Amino acid sequence: MNAMYVYQTRIRLHDTDAAGVIFFANQFKIIHDAYEGLLETVGFGFAELISHKDFFLPIVHAESDYKMPLSVGDVLEVRVKVEKVGQTSFTLSYALVNARKETVGTGRTVHVTVSKATQKKIPLPADLRAKLEKLHRQDKG
Amino acid sequence: MNAMYVYQTRIRLHDTDAAGVIFFANQFKIIHDAYEGLLETVGFGFAELISHKDFFLPIVHAESDYKMPLSVGDVLEVRVKVEKVGQTSFTLSYALVNARKETVGTGRTVHVTVSKATQKKIPLPADLRAKLEKLHRQDKG
Amino acid sequence: MNAMYVYQTRIRLHDTDAAGVIFFANQFKIIHDAYEGLLETVGFGFAELISHKDFFLPIVHAESDYKMPLSVGDVLEVRVKVEKVGQTSFTLSYALVNARKETVGTGRTVHVTVSKATQKKIPLPADLRAKLEKLHRQDKG
Amino acid sequence: MNAMYVYQTRIRLHDTDAAGVIFFANQFKIIHDAYEGLLETVGFGFAELISHKDFFLPIVHAESDYKMPLSVGDVLEVRVKVEKVGQTSFTLSYALVNARKETVGTGRTVHVTVSKATQKKIPLPADLRAKLEKLHRQDKG
Repeated sequence: MNAMYVYQTRIRLHDTDAAGVIFFANQFKIIHDAYEGLLETVGFGFAELISHKDFFLPIVHAESDYKMPLSVGDVLEVRVKVEKVGQTSFTLSYALVNARKETVGTGRTVHVTVSKATQKKIPLPADLRAKLEKLHRQDKG
Repeated sequence: MNAMYVYQTRIRLHDTDAAGVIFFANQFKIIHDAYEGLLETVGFGFAELISHKDFFLPIVHAESDYKMPLSVGDVLEVRVKVEKVGQTSFTLSYALVNARKETVGTGRTVHVTVSKATQKKIPLPADLRAKLEKLHRQDKG
Repeated sequence: MNAMYVYQTRIRLHDTDAAGVIFFANQFKIIHDAYEGLLETVGFGFAELISHKDFFLPIVHAESDYKMPLSVGDVLEVRVKVEKVGQTSFTLSYALVNARKETVGTGRTVHVTVSKATQKKIPLPADLRAKLEKLHRQDKG
Repeated sequence: MNAMYVYQTRIRLHDTDAAGVIFFANQFKIIHDAYEGLLETVGFGFAELISHKDFFLPIVHAESDYKMPLSVGDVLEVRVKVEKVGQTSFTLSYALVNARKETVGTGRTVHVTVSKATQKKIPLPADLRAKLEKLHRQDKG
């Protein structure tokens, strides 16, 4: 296991629904929390991204698989990998692992770089690219 | 019953939690949906507010009472009243009424007008004041 | 356009985030609202499913594509198709269409039938299968 | 500062809305997270409450004040106090404190004990009462 970044969290009551376990869309919320945590570790938080950068990083594709139900109180690790760094996009993958080290779910998000000015795709900024490629290499190393 | 504005909605699975009924914070989400609906009826949607106005309308106080549990699929009316229009603030009250005409919950939100430029309280803009006062009068009429 | 079921909704402030448009996970919330609406039209609401049936219908896979950003106040149609009805699973696909008839996003969910008693996969119950197959046929017809 | 229980959290993108700061209802979500954390520290998690207890603890009243906006990435302490322990209810109060030790918001929730069997109010169970009263005393001590 050489995941670049591990995010610790716990399932809260608001993550669940009346069927008794996590509402499926909240798995996406949780993997995004992990993505925000990863960006913070490379000095690239969303506050700065939204206020001070000239680009957005919208998600253009997201998917999740659900292998076991998650219940309120469950402790969870989200292991994030930088799967691919492209010209104008990057792909992250996620594994949700419970306290018994079982993979209860997985996810993937594809992000593109969009200029705030033109709303068009632009190449990944050099500093972000460098950080993502470093994570990608470590991940494989 | 002379509520100015009635918003129709239905409890969805994501509104509930593992205790089987609505998660309490989602009652606040629902009353805000009704508030957005009311603003739209007076030609004052949030899209315009956020993009084209020089003020925000942050909520400085919110409260709710819960009289009966709400379950997934329950049809709901939210009856909104303009309770008070002040110099720099206004207060809305809400009654959540189920299909059997029972009041299952109530709420209240207090909003202030804050300049986007200075982040300080400013008097209610004349057009918004006029619209809210009209709703307030009809409500009592 | 022969989608079986069309769900009308509107983007609310709580669907958005500080980047100014819909938070990606909320597109999944919205397609599930549409799925609940579809089940209600065939007399099969979640309240009954949770309280009176001996099976669950958990989602084992979900995916979305995002083609255009959605903003607060945007009116939306969610067009739901029954894509496939299998032995122990079914697949739904979704198209999110804005007021200008542009497809702003798509989605897909795969559901399995799980016994509440054994927590194991079971064949789709006959009545649910019949309803889904009818929708599937109409959809292609 | 003698708050009984302090919960650490961080504002995530999904907590915010297109106005740029936290969506007011999410302050209620966050104080409930802190309440769940407090119950866990006294060995009384929601998983057990939902599955193994013969009572619920529904919220019958909730309120919040908002003193300063919260933005994505903001680190937050939620300081929880047991304000009152009654016959069939208890009241918790919350202070949200940012990294500069400013109180950015406050909250209060009132909980009642309801029998799962009869759906009627019952006296607080002895073990829960003992735990809450101990927290209440420490809080004042």
